[in-house]
Amino acid sequence: MGANTYRRRVEKCTTMMRAEEFDILLLTKPSNMYYLTGDGRLCAYAMITQEGEVAVGVPKTDIEDVRQHAYFNHIVGFGDEVGMIHSIAHYFDHFGIQHGTLGLEYTFLTQSMMGVVTHPHAKPEGVTARDCTPIMSSLRIVKEEAEIDCLRQSSLVADAGMKAAIEGIKAGITESQVAAEAEYAMRQAGAEEFWRTYVSSGPRTGIAHGLPTNRRLEAGDLVMIDIHPIVNGYSSDSCRTVCVGTATPEQRFAYDLYLKAQQAAIAKTRAGIGMVELEQTMHEIIKEGGHGEHIFGPPIHGTGIDFEESPLPPGHAFFHGEKEPPPLLANVVIAIGNCGIYTDGWGVRVEDTVVVGEEGPVVLTGYPYLLERR
Amino acid sequence: MGANTYRRRVEKCTTMMRAEEFDILLLTKPSNMYYLTGDGRLCAYAMITQEGEVAVGVPKTDIEDVRQHAYFNHIVGFGDEVGMIHSIAHYFDHFGIQHGTLGLEYTFLTQSMMGVVTHPHAKPEGVTARDCTPIMSSLRIVKEEAEIDCLRQSSLVADAGMKAAIEGIKAGITESQVAAEAEYAMRQAGAEEFWRTYVSSGPRTGIAHGLPTNRRLEAGDLVMIDIHPIVNGYSSDSCRTVCVGTATPEQRFAYDLYLKAQQAAIAKTRAGIGMVELEQTMHEIIKEGGHGEHIFGPPIHGTGIDFEESPLPPGHAFFHGEKEPPPLLANVVIAIGNCGIYTDGWGVRVEDTVVVGEEGPVVLTGYPYLLERR
Repeated sequence: MGANTYRRRVEKCTTMMRAEEFDILLLTKPSNMYYLTGDGRLCAYAMITQEGEVAVGVPKTDIEDVRQHAYFNHIVGFGDEVGMIHSIAHYFDHFGIQHGTLGLEYTFLTQSMMGVVTHPHAKPEGVTARDCTPIMSSLRIVKEEAEIDCLRQSSLVADAGMKAAIEGIKAGITESQVAAEAEYAMRQAGAEEFWRTYVSSGPRTGIAHGLPTNRRLEAGDLVMIDIHPIVNGYSSDSCRTVCVGTATPEQRFAYDLYLKAQQAAIAKTRAGIGMVELEQTMHEIIKEGGHGEHIFGPPIHGTGIDFEESPLPPGHAFFHGEKEPPPLLANVVIAIGNCGIYTDGWGVRVEDTVVVGEEGPVVLTGYPYLLERR
Repeated sequence: MGANTYRRRVEKCTTMMRAEEFDILLLTKPSNMYYLTGDGRLCAYAMITQEGEVAVGVPKTDIEDVRQHAYFNHIVGFGDEVGMIHSIAHYFDHFGIQHGTLGLEYTFLTQSMMGVVTHPHAKPEGVTARDCTPIMSSLRIVKEEAEIDCLRQSSLVADAGMKAAIEGIKAGITESQVAAEAEYAMRQAGAEEFWRTYVSSGPRTGIAHGLPTNRRLEAGDLVMIDIHPIVNGYSSDSCRTVCVGTATPEQRFAYDLYLKAQQAAIAKTRAGIGMVELEQTMHEIIKEGGHGEHIFGPPIHGTGIDFEESPLPPGHAFFHGEKEPPPLLANVVIAIGNCGIYTDGWGVRVEDTVVVGEEGPVVLTGYPYLLERR
């Protein structure tokens, strides 16, 4: 994306800053920096003034690399944390800000990082800090065409990863080896990175966050695979559940029920609908099928530079310091199907990445829904 | 590890709690929970009382899974964040704690997570929170024999990953594809997981934190690979730099210099030596070789359940809310060689995982040091 894109985003950011009465932002969350400058890395920061000046601080080794692809007005390199603190003070001084309100990412900064960026040697005494998460979420929630293209590419890569993982499934291999197939294929297909791969099997499919272990697949196991490849900085989100061999009638029933619920929510997806309505659509079908007690967690969340980002579902939103989301706008991108049916001995989940269209859903991830491969 | 191991660790923890005047700890960092209970997962917590009672809270779907391998006295499942908050309040009530000092992990909790765990519906008003990071670091810094065995296994897996990555290197493939080889091999060799793989090439080897991109390797490029496989919950840390073809005399000189510095620091490693002394050993050799300006970052850090943990180097320690580490004790495990030589056009780095022995170093990662493969 060109400098004009970042200039436009920063301008929109400054409009929001004025409305919310922020004099300056100090961002350290890579995804937020990536959105506004085209570069997001750890151990770095970006300051944004109400006038739209962008000042970045990066490890001194990284200056040339950042210069080549990032949008900014000022850059400084630092050698260590003390240098970082002093460089922040330098920018406050340069911008003439000794009073006013500083925006910080309360949903990203640890308590100890807060201590660093608000250190008396970094932040002027007269400047008070406040959470700017809602501004960054509002900025990023509606995707531009170029962003949707990245998410489309990421979805193709997710499909390739899912195909490799599912085709590799057989009794005797470990959950970790299933993850290996997905990840290898995603990198071969063009992912520069991926968020953590989830693979669970057998009784472990009944837990909410099944990271891979060295448990070996057995005949009759369900296997749940959830992947998030990153392509050009953007991440899709896709989950499938398959059986090693033949599923039981109960598993088949739950899978079909879950898929029906997920597809119903996808079908209702369009500009103007509320997150809660989509959530209720899924939940009600699952409840009618008798699995209401086995739902866990909110079924829908946004995806973009972070694989889990705004719009966040109401409960999670609170947890992440965000407000309840308004009705969905066109070109918001969401992952639908994250709640799952989790019984005592096994679970099923199916999830896809979907663009909220004016007239209806545009489904980006598309690996076939096959509980059994035969 | 058996229940006795966790009982002993919790007992040691309570001794430290009394010394530091903590009435109760509320842990949410997976590595700390893993150390004390044998289970560490996101969206969960563990509370530890001065009397050594361990109460955990997990997603309600995960109760059976946690029950099977974790050590605790009380377990409760919750359905969402509100349920989590109420379950914390329930435990405070159950333990009869309405006043006193609560230990929280300030180096892990985001500002918004702090708001959740100290929410008026979770934490009694009379209880005040304070950082308990130093307690957890002190507990974990010296490794037990069983932990060193895990790190030894992880190091063998790292060597297998490094071998696959280096053997796969050729002009035309992407950095991401190099990472794919390492990760695939690590999962095949027994890693249940890994921390983010770093692969940089060509001019990108000159930056401090080179995550993989889709840049394609060219003849003459240096390639830097840094991997951290997790085996039985423990992570080693290993880095190698190799050339696609033939290195220039300058690159060869810098590589040999860096390796000499790293090996000198390893040779000095033994119980009683200070982190600063090891750091200076490396820095001085690099400075004498004329590359003093190209060092970035502290060369040594601990490794264990987290691939970067206590002992942290002085500068970083401050950043991570920790104190300057005392002289190294026997059976501390450290990664040596993280500073690198970063020039404008390229960089070199070599890093290994080493046990601090009573009499000298025990090097765990051992892939050969070969700048060129021929």
